[in-house]
Amino acid sequence: MQVSREKACTIWFTGLPSSGKSTLAEMLEKELRRRGRYVEILDGDVVRTHLSKGLGFNREDRDTNIRRIGFVCHLLTRNDVFAISAAISPYRNIRDENRAMIGNFVEVYVRCSLEECVKRDVKGLYKKALAGEIKEFTGISDPYEEPLNPEITVDTLEEEPADSLRKILNGLIELGYLKADASDNGRTEATKVAGVEATV
Amino acid sequence: MQVSREKACTIWFTGLPSSGKSTLAEMLEKELRRRGRYVEILDGDVVRTHLSKGLGFNREDRDTNIRRIGFVCHLLTRNDVFAISAAISPYRNIRDENRAMIGNFVEVYVRCSLEECVKRDVKGLYKKALAGEIKEFTGISDPYEEPLNPEITVDTLEEEPADSLRKILNGLIELGYLKADASDNGRTEATKVAGVEATV
Repeated sequence: MQVSREKACTIWFTGLPSSGKSTLAEMLEKELRRRGRYVEILDGDVVRTHLSKGLGFNREDRDTNIRRIGFVCHLLTRNDVFAISAAISPYRNIRDENRAMIGNFVEVYVRCSLEECVKRDVKGLYKKALAGEIKEFTGISDPYEEPLNPEITVDTLEEEPADSLRKILNGLIELGYLKADASDNGRTEATKVAGVEATV
Repeated sequence: MQVSREKACTIWFTGLPSSGKSTLAEMLEKELRRRGRYVEILDGDVVRTHLSKGLGFNREDRDTNIRRIGFVCHLLTRNDVFAISAAISPYRNIRDENRAMIGNFVEVYVRCSLEECVKRDVKGLYKKALAGEIKEFTGISDPYEEPLNPEITVDTLEEEPADSLRKILNGLIELGYLKADASDNGRTEATKVAGVEATV
């Protein structure tokens, strides 16, 4: 398949456990591949196996883990590969450190109420955290700091996954990292910016 | 600058401290860029700052460090970026593990006698190791395992750096990772393989 050489960015998902980061990251990966772009997901679990074995979940170890993911995203992005991080990354200042290092950085806040995340409990970890079996669990016994100025916010309580993906794609088009193609039907942010009102 | 999308590989330099790995890695990086390819050097020191802070130089920590470099090379190479590792990587089995993971893997053995490396002592570390001030120093108090079947061997005692670089480029052409260009004058391995005897 022909894959084009174009400027890419790091797409940095952040949000509570079970907010929907991994689901959206995988949908986005698939869509970027379909559009012929280079993509790599830095999944929290994979990274903890290959880059951060032995690190725990206290503040210092979490920071180290997120910095490492950021470093790898940096290497990929400057070689025109979309790097997608789907780690919780609860602390604002480390996300901002990565933003500064990487430059082409798009923060996607995956918003979802704690109540709903606890209900979903994809990995069964909230249950354990609420029973006191897991210490330092983000949202329960460890803080989560919301982004102040994320490039993109999705709301997985109110939106369907396809709607959230649409928002992200429109954001990437608007920011100049993607070109709109035939599948971007309807009015996108990009066309609004350009003053064109495209409808299908 | 136009950069082409073509199959890349990991170029894995290995050799004693001061054997010339970093010098050749930098020359190769420059040359690959000149040819319009994506390149990233995973320098031992940079990696120890960004991926392996806190790791020491015992066998286990060295293995972890080399595996991490291998993982990042893997991510880059499968996105058509030449990843160049210039870490000592003294142990054969971890290099082979990385080879198996990465697939498109070209091991470059940078051969140089220990005597000559001690004489060069680029970072002044042999002196300290011989004085007992550094423990676990490769070549002095820690083993170095030569590759058994490296794709490319250069000899920095007998060859000029430009000659070693020529060998590496010819090897990459022969292995199908590079196309010969006008600068590849004279008879290269590639042209020998093709049965063409090009001379300038």
